[in-house]
Amino acid sequence: MRASQLFMPTLKETPAEAELVSHQLLLRGGFIRRLASGLYTWLPLGLRVLRKVERIVREEMDRCGAQEVLMPVVQPAELWQESGRWEQYGPELLRIHDRHDREFCLGPTHEEVVTDLLRREIHSYRQLPINVYQIQTKFRDEIRPRFGLMRGREFVMKDAYSFHLEAASLESTYEAMFAAYTRIFTRLGLDFRAVEADTGAIGGKRSHEFHVLADSGEDAIVFCHHCDYAANLELAQSRLPDEAPEAPLPAEQVPTPGIRSVAAQAEMLKISTARIVKTVLVMADEKPVLLLLRGDDELNLVKATNALAAKSLRLASQEETEEACGVPVGFIGPKDLPRDLPILADHHALTVQNFSTGANVADLHWINLHWGRDLPLAAAADLRSVRAGEPCPRCASGTLGIRRGIEVGHVFQLGERYSKAMNMTVLDETGRDRTVTTGCYGIGVSRVVAAAVEQHFDDRGILWPRALAPFTVGIVAINGRKSPDVAAAAELLHNQLEAAGYAVLLDDRDERPGVQFATMDLIGLPHRVVVSDKVLAQGVFEYRDRRGTDNVHLSYEELLTQLKGGEPS
Amino acid sequence: MRASQLFMPTLKETPAEAELVSHQLLLRGGFIRRLASGLYTWLPLGLRVLRKVERIVREEMDRCGAQEVLMPVVQPAELWQESGRWEQYGPELLRIHDRHDREFCLGPTHEEVVTDLLRREIHSYRQLPINVYQIQTKFRDEIRPRFGLMRGREFVMKDAYSFHLEAASLESTYEAMFAAYTRIFTRLGLDFRAVEADTGAIGGKRSHEFHVLADSGEDAIVFCHHCDYAANLELAQSRLPDEAPEAPLPAEQVPTPGIRSVAAQAEMLKISTARIVKTVLVMADEKPVLLLLRGDDELNLVKATNALAAKSLRLASQEETEEACGVPVGFIGPKDLPRDLPILADHHALTVQNFSTGANVADLHWINLHWGRDLPLAAAADLRSVRAGEPCPRCASGTLGIRRGIEVGHVFQLGERYSKAMNMTVLDETGRDRTVTTGCYGIGVSRVVAAAVEQHFDDRGILWPRALAPFTVGIVAINGRKSPDVAAAAELLHNQLEAAGYAVLLDDRDERPGVQFATMDLIGLPHRVVVSDKVLAQGVFEYRDRRGTDNVHLSYEELLTQLKGGEPS
Repeated sequence: MRASQLFMPTLKETPAEAELVSHQLLLRGGFIRRLASGLYTWLPLGLRVLRKVERIVREEMDRCGAQEVLMPVVQPAELWQESGRWEQYGPELLRIHDRHDREFCLGPTHEEVVTDLLRREIHSYRQLPINVYQIQTKFRDEIRPRFGLMRGREFVMKDAYSFHLEAASLESTYEAMFAAYTRIFTRLGLDFRAVEADTGAIGGKRSHEFHVLADSGEDAIVFCHHCDYAANLELAQSRLPDEAPEAPLPAEQVPTPGIRSVAAQAEMLKISTARIVKTVLVMADEKPVLLLLRGDDELNLVKATNALAAKSLRLASQEETEEACGVPVGFIGPKDLPRDLPILADHHALTVQNFSTGANVADLHWINLHWGRDLPLAAAADLRSVRAGEPCPRCASGTLGIRRGIEVGHVFQLGERYSKAMNMTVLDETGRDRTVTTGCYGIGVSRVVAAAVEQHFDDRGILWPRALAPFTVGIVAINGRKSPDVAAAAELLHNQLEAAGYAVLLDDRDERPGVQFATMDLIGLPHRVVVSDKVLAQGVFEYRDRRGTDNVHLSYEELLTQLKGGEPS
Repeated sequence: MRASQLFMPTLKETPAEAELVSHQLLLRGGFIRRLASGLYTWLPLGLRVLRKVERIVREEMDRCGAQEVLMPVVQPAELWQESGRWEQYGPELLRIHDRHDREFCLGPTHEEVVTDLLRREIHSYRQLPINVYQIQTKFRDEIRPRFGLMRGREFVMKDAYSFHLEAASLESTYEAMFAAYTRIFTRLGLDFRAVEADTGAIGGKRSHEFHVLADSGEDAIVFCHHCDYAANLELAQSRLPDEAPEAPLPAEQVPTPGIRSVAAQAEMLKISTARIVKTVLVMADEKPVLLLLRGDDELNLVKATNALAAKSLRLASQEETEEACGVPVGFIGPKDLPRDLPILADHHALTVQNFSTGANVADLHWINLHWGRDLPLAAAADLRSVRAGEPCPRCASGTLGIRRGIEVGHVFQLGERYSKAMNMTVLDETGRDRTVTTGCYGIGVSRVVAAAVEQHFDDRGILWPRALAPFTVGIVAINGRKSPDVAAAAELLHNQLEAAGYAVLLDDRDERPGVQFATMDLIGLPHRVVVSDKVLAQGVFEYRDRRGTDNVHLSYEELLTQLKGGEPS
């Protein structure tokens, strides 16, 4: 491909709309353009990258026995009503009316459609297991689309759905998909982690997310430095050390005028925040629940939601808190709470000794309280987020680290969530009707493109992993419009490398060398070859790896050897 | 691929919902399934066919210099308001509101989006011409979706758009796209015709449709038996023979009580219908116009719309006609019409001599009228549909035939329709701002699949052209579940043929031979090879071409030679 023939509108300036590096570089390099909020057009260069992701995903899905189908984008409301999601799903589900005023939605996901398809065709256990997938345009009406491809409204997704008679069969397909995902992200050249994930409101059994590690990631990923434990912070646990018993001091009330924060309380009382039990009022399904945490711990809303089996959960406002507890905010405590409220404590908060907490009177706190002696032990659950450096919950010797990740894949054992609601049954070997059990498996295909950039860039532009690069080799013809020798040699090299199986971009534009080099760096092709009168006089090509800074002079044969460092593509 | 592993739910019965053969066979063969009215899921077998069409289309688009992009399905209303189509486009444009109540539509076509994209990036004549295309899901809210893939609501389309400074450049790209379309449909193995087409309300300059010939086609295609003239019936012309002058007879009025039809008029007056000038009242943009046609000719609404430069045109009701003309229907004529109405005659109606027409009085007709002598010549235009057997308008010696066609492609010189409305200009060589001129080029990718079936089927099922077949070779293992020899030989053959580059489907299901044969015939693979204990004992395979009825015994080498009749795929 010749750059003069390629629609590749690069930008010198970073567009003001773009915060994330990937968004900036994909716009600047002419990979994508914005049509409207959260809607992007893929330009030729970007589409080449997208197709490379698609191809690898497709190959690995086919390899593990999944079968490709293609379901409609537009889905009838009836199916979503049947599954119960028409009501449950928030405004991210774009609901539409057709000309006959029938209700439809733009599919953000296809559990209903695929369950409807298969319940009509699959009637016997002999037809199971089955695993179907599609690579398709999806729509999610984000309230504030941002970060370019990372959180767009229209996006490309690979979604797979498997159906089984028995849990063991689901487990086996789940493992196969897990392995396929591992191969996919490995082949894509991405540094990633598979982490245990929250199964959330869907109430599934087992779930892993695949995260591309990048500082800009929206998720916090917890992993053990020693063993293979890894989990989303939403879910991650740590092993808490046993606290040595302390000599119990006498409980007393201390005036703390105007002291409303944990930090101020610790400072005034000259104690560690770890010796404080703090209270947080949440509204679980709009009913107040008082949560207790150690003063230096952070409430994990996902864990609290799961512990309370709540459909929705939010922090209460100051007004709601004072009304529910009957105490000014800042002075609430679990001892002698004037109102009858459900109380749930984090395990960690129950191991604190000689602790301080609000006395349920304005400007007054307790110190030296003891669970059991001064107040009954509260019901306990895991409510806190782990912190880096804590001991691994799985192995004996590791400590936990935390990194940022971009979620690009998700495997999920749904169980009977949809098959039960939509009555998908098959006859088993004994002729009995049995509800099938299911799994679902997603990859954010367009998000992978952005995530790859977040992980692979420098101050000059993108550093595409070879498997994703829109072209493997970039040839820069210096002054090719003026030097017929350069033009001919560059053209010959282009044709030879294409014949050898490489995807080649020849920059034959009428531009200054500085512009040509900057363009090559920006669009991030792995290999750059310069053809100029100067190097031609020496009978060589000038080669540079995009990740390096050294130019080396190579003959054609040496260049081929250099490129063979990886597969042609 | 083994049939036991393939999700291919075939049906014995023809589904009641399906009228067209393609719809019936694609459902029965397990290629597609209906989700809702006009919405279809592509099952694995159907998706393989669709991808084959896509691949050939993509290769030929790339070959002729078009560049692939991918634009969003969801489009902002603002662009459609700018082009004027937000108002013009009827209820087939599915309009939606996002969560912020902003207006969008699901794209039935992308002229606005692509013009917006390119007007932001293209500023100089040096960046032209450019031709971009996409293969993408589109949506058109048909009032009565029917015929399966033929007229669905969600469908896959290849749409290309070219932009030029000069008409000559547009013409050259138009020719290149025409040639690419010809290669595409030829490679797909379809019997097709490119025909001149109406440029309609868009007011473009030149347009051709590509039709797959099939008896079920919705369009009538007129073509010359002698030269390459071919046009849609909406547009087709014929060369009318000169009428020999006749001796003028005296005009007179004849009572015709209750005679309201051309046929009854001819019978009562004992004249040919060709000697009658009939009247048709139409509402052009809701204003009445009286059209005159020869009695045996048929009004062509598209031609009338174009001749009157009307945005909309419809036949008037009886009430509207009688009110506008002041004469009972059946007795209206161009001579002494009591009301002042615009009158437009088909050329053919002006060559009739000694003609009969209504006398503008109930139960009374004229006979032996002559244009000029008895009434002034009306304004003339081409208003009639041509008939088979008429002389070709282009060559001297040919006569016209008419066949039915399914429109699968359309190339169109739009001119400045969108670039002017959306103000897309570039600087020309003299530094002057010039509005660009554009072309658009569509292929109904999913419709091609249905059209191919309409053209290639027999009473047992589909007869896929080789380029479209989901698999090239079908192997039937007879009693393979009971005979280890058959199973092993079939498996070996499957692997050998796959290694040789053929797409192979091995029917290894536990089914009776009759069911296996019926399935192979239904899904229409070009080559069938039977492996049974009987033929294995003779050291051969039993081969049959799907289009033939003879079984032949072939060795493996002979089989390879047989398959090589075409390219592996």
